[in-house]
Amino acid sequence: MSAQNWWQNAVQAPSSATRDAALERQGQLTKPPGALGELENIAVQFAAFRNQVKPEIKQPQCIVFAGDHGVVAKGVSAFPQAVTVEMIKNFVAGGAAVSVLAAYHQMPLSVVNCGTAFPCEALEGVIQRPVMAGTQDFSEQAAMSDEQARQALAIGAEQIERLQADGCDLFMAGEMGIGNTSAASCLSAVLLEQDVVALTGPGTGLQGDALNHKQQVLAASVERALPLIDSPLAALAQLGGLEIAAMAGAYIRAAQLGMPMLVDGFISTSAALLAVKLNPAVRDWMLFAHSSAEPGHKTLLAALDAKPLVQLGMRLGEGSGAALALGVVKQALALHNNMATFAEAAVSSGA
Amino acid sequence: MSAQNWWQNAVQAPSSATRDAALERQGQLTKPPGALGELENIAVQFAAFRNQVKPEIKQPQCIVFAGDHGVVAKGVSAFPQAVTVEMIKNFVAGGAAVSVLAAYHQMPLSVVNCGTAFPCEALEGVIQRPVMAGTQDFSEQAAMSDEQARQALAIGAEQIERLQADGCDLFMAGEMGIGNTSAASCLSAVLLEQDVVALTGPGTGLQGDALNHKQQVLAASVERALPLIDSPLAALAQLGGLEIAAMAGAYIRAAQLGMPMLVDGFISTSAALLAVKLNPAVRDWMLFAHSSAEPGHKTLLAALDAKPLVQLGMRLGEGSGAALALGVVKQALALHNNMATFAEAAVSSGA
Repeated sequence: MSAQNWWQNAVQAPSSATRDAALERQGQLTKPPGALGELENIAVQFAAFRNQVKPEIKQPQCIVFAGDHGVVAKGVSAFPQAVTVEMIKNFVAGGAAVSVLAAYHQMPLSVVNCGTAFPCEALEGVIQRPVMAGTQDFSEQAAMSDEQARQALAIGAEQIERLQADGCDLFMAGEMGIGNTSAASCLSAVLLEQDVVALTGPGTGLQGDALNHKQQVLAASVERALPLIDSPLAALAQLGGLEIAAMAGAYIRAAQLGMPMLVDGFISTSAALLAVKLNPAVRDWMLFAHSSAEPGHKTLLAALDAKPLVQLGMRLGEGSGAALALGVVKQALALHNNMATFAEAAVSSGA
Repeated sequence: MSAQNWWQNAVQAPSSATRDAALERQGQLTKPPGALGELENIAVQFAAFRNQVKPEIKQPQCIVFAGDHGVVAKGVSAFPQAVTVEMIKNFVAGGAAVSVLAAYHQMPLSVVNCGTAFPCEALEGVIQRPVMAGTQDFSEQAAMSDEQARQALAIGAEQIERLQADGCDLFMAGEMGIGNTSAASCLSAVLLEQDVVALTGPGTGLQGDALNHKQQVLAASVERALPLIDSPLAALAQLGGLEIAAMAGAYIRAAQLGMPMLVDGFISTSAALLAVKLNPAVRDWMLFAHSSAEPGHKTLLAALDAKPLVQLGMRLGEGSGAALALGVVKQALALHNNMATFAEAAVSSGA
């Protein structure tokens, strides 16, 4: 047994004293107690995260991790694999959904190539960290070796250290990878000891026979891999994805550095689940942005005891739901920080 | 029978041709079809509202209508009546929730005094249009005369004409009035022919015996008034509120001028219901911002076939939920207008 792995290193708890002070402030603001609902909870959580009674977010950042999936050879996606690299270009050119929302929020967006099947040229805004040219077809063999899994996890940690140096105070991860709902479904099924078919949905848009086929391929993949899995790391290597590993590594390192995070949709939440299985205290630093239309997302959210901020039927990934929910978080903090108290406004309080 | 009332004047339908063109654009953007969920619907609806395939919102505006309620003499609110005027001052001083959100969105906010029980001094940003010093106690007599109801409806119409002259392209109404959940519950019960007790909730925070008492007072009020009500206008006069009337008048006039609106919570939706009862075509110009924690709101939303944008457990009124949801609307339009098409980005489309 080697020394402890980096991802097991300690995570400090958010400040409960500052949470209490923020809660007290909420009770003094000119509104009936609790009348701002979840917006109050968001503000109080950020107070604990940032250890500030009036917490601010000055520099949110989003990183899109991209990687390809060998299992698409089995026909589990509605889109061709070339789209992964095409969308990397679209992200940095500003035309993708998450690019538009990042621009809306004046939020830095970067893209990390964790391993695409097609060549990805050098592009401004794309950080090249390919572990391999997409994973192996996990319906036939391990998606990656243990060493490749460790390497992919470390990509995320390295990126968070870059963001920390920038002064990032809220992290959100997005992903791009044709076939990655398949990896997310299989990985989650194994981590939760649940039936993979119940966690398998249309992804980018499979229906009818095509969806049934995807479910059969994934059920066979889990059956193949299960006897070989004795740890979350082994589950990742057998059935995961490079971008999912990098996201999990990023979530863990963010928590270790006390950087709060806003988790996006189904794929991101599968990475969050992996992160929490690798180091349970990481959960304390996570907020969940939205409830995806991908049906398995509800199960993952429930397993993480997560209450997402918005329900808009989004199912795009890329970090788009997290970027959308950033608007809610910013408004929650504006209310908490800028509303008058009953005393300041000379308003009579309730019975 | 006099000539037709102004509120019955024609409302044009939003442009279905432009809606179709916007829907076609949605299908060309670099995402799987439907992957942005409700955000796609919002953008397509605004295209129809504004008759622009790429619709913009350049000047949203919020008006808070304030008025008092005689029925508070019967102990139906957790807050004293003085709070209505105290909060009017807080709105224009910038310390109230809706003030903070209006500042966040750089959105003009104005306040209209439709009739407060306590004197409301001249204040910058407050438009003085008092119909009477708060309504009469509707548990004992009509809240206002038919003529006062007409006068209060006209306040809203006048304000919308002011906004139209400013170039306002999205209207949201908020309200302030201690006791106004009572008026909203009674008015809605009569308009929907439903039991008022089922539509009566805690408002600013009543529980237990106090809530039971409120429900009894409202049930008796409806019983008193019902034989006297033969029209939506009579329902308003018997059981409504001055600010509710002004909001309804504003909604109607906005629709007549082709100005889309974002409806806030329980009180606002009761005013929206009244507006639709007075002129059904007004419904076409309404989007519903959020689902309030006030329990009767769900019934009102269902009656209006409305699907609110966010569910955050808010129950404050003031227009705060509408202002919060403005962030979602703006992001929906940014995505629709600024995302690349498959052709523009040279991304392969799906199977």
